[in-house]
Amino acid sequence: MARWRVGILGATGLVGQHLVARLAAHPWFELRAVGASEARRGQTYGQAVSWQLDGAPPPAAARLALAPCEPGAFEDCQIVFSALAREVALEVEPAFAAAGFAVVSNSAALRDDPDVPLLVPEVNGAHLALLERQRPRWPGCVVTNPNCSTVGLVLSLAPLAARFGVRRAFVATMQAVSGAGLGGPSALELLDNVLPWIPGEEEKIERETRKILGTLGAGGVEPASLELAAHCHRVPVRDGHLEAVSVELDRPASPEEALEAWRAYIPPESVRRLPSAPERTLQVRLEPDRPQPRRDRDSGGGMTVVIGRVRSCPLFTLRYVLLVHNTIRGAAGAALLNAELLAASGLLERHGRP
Amino acid sequence: MARWRVGILGATGLVGQHLVARLAAHPWFELRAVGASEARRGQTYGQAVSWQLDGAPPPAAARLALAPCEPGAFEDCQIVFSALAREVALEVEPAFAAAGFAVVSNSAALRDDPDVPLLVPEVNGAHLALLERQRPRWPGCVVTNPNCSTVGLVLSLAPLAARFGVRRAFVATMQAVSGAGLGGPSALELLDNVLPWIPGEEEKIERETRKILGTLGAGGVEPASLELAAHCHRVPVRDGHLEAVSVELDRPASPEEALEAWRAYIPPESVRRLPSAPERTLQVRLEPDRPQPRRDRDSGGGMTVVIGRVRSCPLFTLRYVLLVHNTIRGAAGAALLNAELLAASGLLERHGRP
Amino acid sequence: MARWRVGILGATGLVGQHLVARLAAHPWFELRAVGASEARRGQTYGQAVSWQLDGAPPPAAARLALAPCEPGAFEDCQIVFSALAREVALEVEPAFAAAGFAVVSNSAALRDDPDVPLLVPEVNGAHLALLERQRPRWPGCVVTNPNCSTVGLVLSLAPLAARFGVRRAFVATMQAVSGAGLGGPSALELLDNVLPWIPGEEEKIERETRKILGTLGAGGVEPASLELAAHCHRVPVRDGHLEAVSVELDRPASPEEALEAWRAYIPPESVRRLPSAPERTLQVRLEPDRPQPRRDRDSGGGMTVVIGRVRSCPLFTLRYVLLVHNTIRGAAGAALLNAELLAASGLLERHGRP
Amino acid sequence: MARWRVGILGATGLVGQHLVARLAAHPWFELRAVGASEARRGQTYGQAVSWQLDGAPPPAAARLALAPCEPGAFEDCQIVFSALAREVALEVEPAFAAAGFAVVSNSAALRDDPDVPLLVPEVNGAHLALLERQRPRWPGCVVTNPNCSTVGLVLSLAPLAARFGVRRAFVATMQAVSGAGLGGPSALELLDNVLPWIPGEEEKIERETRKILGTLGAGGVEPASLELAAHCHRVPVRDGHLEAVSVELDRPASPEEALEAWRAYIPPESVRRLPSAPERTLQVRLEPDRPQPRRDRDSGGGMTVVIGRVRSCPLFTLRYVLLVHNTIRGAAGAALLNAELLAASGLLERHGRP
Repeated sequence: MARWRVGILGATGLVGQHLVARLAAHPWFELRAVGASEARRGQTYGQAVSWQLDGAPPPAAARLALAPCEPGAFEDCQIVFSALAREVALEVEPAFAAAGFAVVSNSAALRDDPDVPLLVPEVNGAHLALLERQRPRWPGCVVTNPNCSTVGLVLSLAPLAARFGVRRAFVATMQAVSGAGLGGPSALELLDNVLPWIPGEEEKIERETRKILGTLGAGGVEPASLELAAHCHRVPVRDGHLEAVSVELDRPASPEEALEAWRAYIPPESVRRLPSAPERTLQVRLEPDRPQPRRDRDSGGGMTVVIGRVRSCPLFTLRYVLLVHNTIRGAAGAALLNAELLAASGLLERHGRP
Repeated sequence: MARWRVGILGATGLVGQHLVARLAAHPWFELRAVGASEARRGQTYGQAVSWQLDGAPPPAAARLALAPCEPGAFEDCQIVFSALAREVALEVEPAFAAAGFAVVSNSAALRDDPDVPLLVPEVNGAHLALLERQRPRWPGCVVTNPNCSTVGLVLSLAPLAARFGVRRAFVATMQAVSGAGLGGPSALELLDNVLPWIPGEEEKIERETRKILGTLGAGGVEPASLELAAHCHRVPVRDGHLEAVSVELDRPASPEEALEAWRAYIPPESVRRLPSAPERTLQVRLEPDRPQPRRDRDSGGGMTVVIGRVRSCPLFTLRYVLLVHNTIRGAAGAALLNAELLAASGLLERHGRP
Repeated sequence: MARWRVGILGATGLVGQHLVARLAAHPWFELRAVGASEARRGQTYGQAVSWQLDGAPPPAAARLALAPCEPGAFEDCQIVFSALAREVALEVEPAFAAAGFAVVSNSAALRDDPDVPLLVPEVNGAHLALLERQRPRWPGCVVTNPNCSTVGLVLSLAPLAARFGVRRAFVATMQAVSGAGLGGPSALELLDNVLPWIPGEEEKIERETRKILGTLGAGGVEPASLELAAHCHRVPVRDGHLEAVSVELDRPASPEEALEAWRAYIPPESVRRLPSAPERTLQVRLEPDRPQPRRDRDSGGGMTVVIGRVRSCPLFTLRYVLLVHNTIRGAAGAALLNAELLAASGLLERHGRP
Repeated sequence: MARWRVGILGATGLVGQHLVARLAAHPWFELRAVGASEARRGQTYGQAVSWQLDGAPPPAAARLALAPCEPGAFEDCQIVFSALAREVALEVEPAFAAAGFAVVSNSAALRDDPDVPLLVPEVNGAHLALLERQRPRWPGCVVTNPNCSTVGLVLSLAPLAARFGVRRAFVATMQAVSGAGLGGPSALELLDNVLPWIPGEEEKIERETRKILGTLGAGGVEPASLELAAHCHRVPVRDGHLEAVSVELDRPASPEEALEAWRAYIPPESVRRLPSAPERTLQVRLEPDRPQPRRDRDSGGGMTVVIGRVRSCPLFTLRYVLLVHNTIRGAAGAALLNAELLAASGLLERHGRP
């Protein structure tokens, strides 16, 4: 079995922890280095991390020495996952690409860079062709995954866009606390409460969705013309973003036709074979009260987007609710799937390190 | 000080308890009788009720004998508040009206009856004229208040409708558990979770809003032409419904103009003088993260609707968030305000009991 | 592979659902019948159950017709698990034993019966000898597992009792909502709250612990002399009972000696080989803030009891905190382990059906 | 009405905010200065504070300029309340006392100082005599209130100590998140969880209780001989610490006799007349499931300690549950009551500023 050597930048944060956990048993990738911006010399990952997931850190990862987020400290790796905060990532990710690494980023730093693919493998794997435009800039490459709320929305919209055309959509999100990472809201703020604002989130959803559903042309990605209005909220839920959507389609479609489009949606064979790809990209539930974060977030190991309550919309064409596991499909799992696609596509040979 | 003698039907439920609590110190109304469908003979209210509010039931109410919900048991009252479940109310409320009582109902039973005013005093007090249409049916009368989510939405839309015209709106609600009463979701169901369905709620919001904002004509109330699409969710919050709204106006309006319309909104003098009317019907907050259920629900003693996050909408005209205390402004306080309006208007003499 | 045919009484309740889920992939047991006291003729399990666990009921179980809880409806089974409410179980369990079934019960109905073993296989498997005392009463047999809080407490006390002697103990529990089953507290009651009373729970802990740690003699089980004072509370946690313990030992023991006793604790080989036995019966954590319900409840698949914060007690000998997954180790997993012990011991041939 | 001019050190923290809120309408005290260790010049309190209580900061306080925590900046005040963190308070509080201020502290910094009274006015107002021992150290004075959990425990034990003698007690706390202030646990940590460790808390409870119940002698306070074992936990509750207690008395007492002792408990007249003194210091509830944090924490405006579930203890004499509002009776209200006692006692003239 071919194996790639990988590292994680920002390994002590919440998304970093999910990456560490998922890499512990990954069939293709071997975790060789973990970095944190505040790395203290001599500390191991196990000593430095405030582990938030169940149980304890995987023993092999716990023994790794924590490294600074500099290319020199990751010489042993071919791929580096970045779970860095945006501001840090803005400097560190290009530095790693310049040093020849394939950077698979979950951060928002370069998502809007016209040369950087914003990938959801099932939807726009073809955008990997953008890597060719990165060649003049650095010997490595950078690919990114979208914001956690965007992934779920895009995966629900893509089959509708392909079959009926999507003109515009409202989306109101109820987002889990893990989406805010270790520095998220305090129990004091969120207990018996909802926070009606997540800084920058609405803009990300509106902008990223258009790029992902956009068309690749000679000049890069032409964003889709889809118009979006997002309303974002933080709710007392640990994992799983719920999103209520009203969508206007180009051609009329009944709820049954939408269900049929979602059920018929099968990603390309090249994506289906990736280790992190779930058996079903989309799951449709017919019970009137599903999906629910706690009951449905682990569908497909957290990689399946669950759709329910599909009904007509008095204003637009359709209304529905979707659920996406924000730290898995919306972050760590998304980055892994991107790295797997990169590895399987043979592009690492051209855009990475031996 | 003029005083009216009042009773409560469904006094042991959650809305009934709020009515009991608020009537304990009411300047106009004196609580004389409490009824429950499952009344057990000989029990007092204090013995029968599973008190959910802070502390203990008001002593005077606790001593009242629990009565069956039949007109004969409320002979001493002029006004009866109904906090009955819809199915029970469908039979009981007309029976009380037929016995000459003024029935002030929080139930959904008769809200859609063309002869029954669906009142938000600040908005459509004029609809009280419908009582004249009830005369052929019964010597008493029935007035109702809307669904808890509807009240907040209508109060936020009314000033916009008056100044700019409201064409259509999308609303996503995040509703508190108290809205489901004593038989609401279990902790097992709602802990670390959101329920994306509240049976009948979306239809109520869409239908009731049009009736309240409708125009009174010779043939009754002509519903407003406003189109609505509602998405309703139950969240782990005790009290306070949060609603995210995108609204399309007939005439363009900037967020500043909307703020100005809300700030300038002053209800009729006749309403402002009612004991349950808050100092401010609407409160606008400019912080980016408000209103929040826990921090803002008690504004104006729970009778003020709080609006925030007012901004442009990429699809419609404006986006904003509103908060309404569902068991006060959305239920018990709403019914009290309706009863006060009825009493102050002098209509009780014509449509009630001496 | 030897297989036994099993049924579940009370299969639609929360413990019943956990049994159904765990039996779906059990190596020894095959689920053949599901019963519910309110069984409606013609309904399948999938139609009748309000499934509270993740995802959906296992398909094979979902297709089973729901049966009434009568021996005639379980003819095909050798073992029946009882997850019935105490009052129902008092009549139904003896009826099944009289019909020759091996009844493995999670209910409290017969736990105090002197002829019925109250089993924690790692601790008192020898109490199975009580079955011989059941022979004059019925051709089948009844074994029970303790209350969910008791299991965790007993498993932590047993190694201390064996090595140092246990004289008396205080225990304050913080219990999860799933312990109350489907009819547990409402979100309205428990949100932002703790309930300081669980009817009957303190008495059960005090009484059952003595029976389990008791000595088997000619006249049955002589309860241990251990004295207990329990304080029980319901907290807003889904799964996992946390218990704070102060224990007085017969011989002095330092925290380190207690840790050593727990670490050295290895159940009999006959128990370790049972499919539901975890790799570690007890897990000791040294971090100052563990165990925690959400992070540690799934240790050993929910079958491991986690102990932490071991320190001296100013009043007694030691203080510590333990965590037990109440619906697994404290209910469904406990019953399965009991059934496995019964099956492996060869006692089914003598006390059951062919 | 005599008025004293007061200031707050640490006014932006959670206890500071409660002090600001309660001082807004205080009959004796006028808030003249607010300080914060991180005070930024030119900012008002309203600009600097992240207000966590309902609504918005009182307008008069919001307009105050935020000052550094130095005596020079509080020249206008006679009394300063300290809600500083322990480390900061260790330096700042003596500096203010040295500058002649009466320092009424909620911090733990000087609670163990043998010259500083650790006050619960209803219990040990006589300890104010310690101020005389402070004279050689500084012209001002320092009085402190205990840890939030300790206040509730002491108020429940004092009547038992007076009537029966208290020998030892076991206490398990379930503490609200507000007790940890603005830097308390994140929603990610506490959602669906209990944290079984609060650093330093158990030691504080054990040590402070003995000092408060101690006897004032020539050499200062001789701590009570009472032995305590505390187990402390953080639960998902906003306000209100619940404590389960088993207590061993010197003389036997039935639950009824304990109830009688608590009901008969009336603080000295000098304390009862203080503005922050509640009508009842202790409230006994007889329902089996009370007190509960959410329903009972506001008893007596948050200043009444509520006791319930009084029953015999199999190991000690009695078991019971108590509830104390941690940010009011356990912090801001406690400090206010202490300041009122100081002011009413005439001691300010001798130990403070004109």
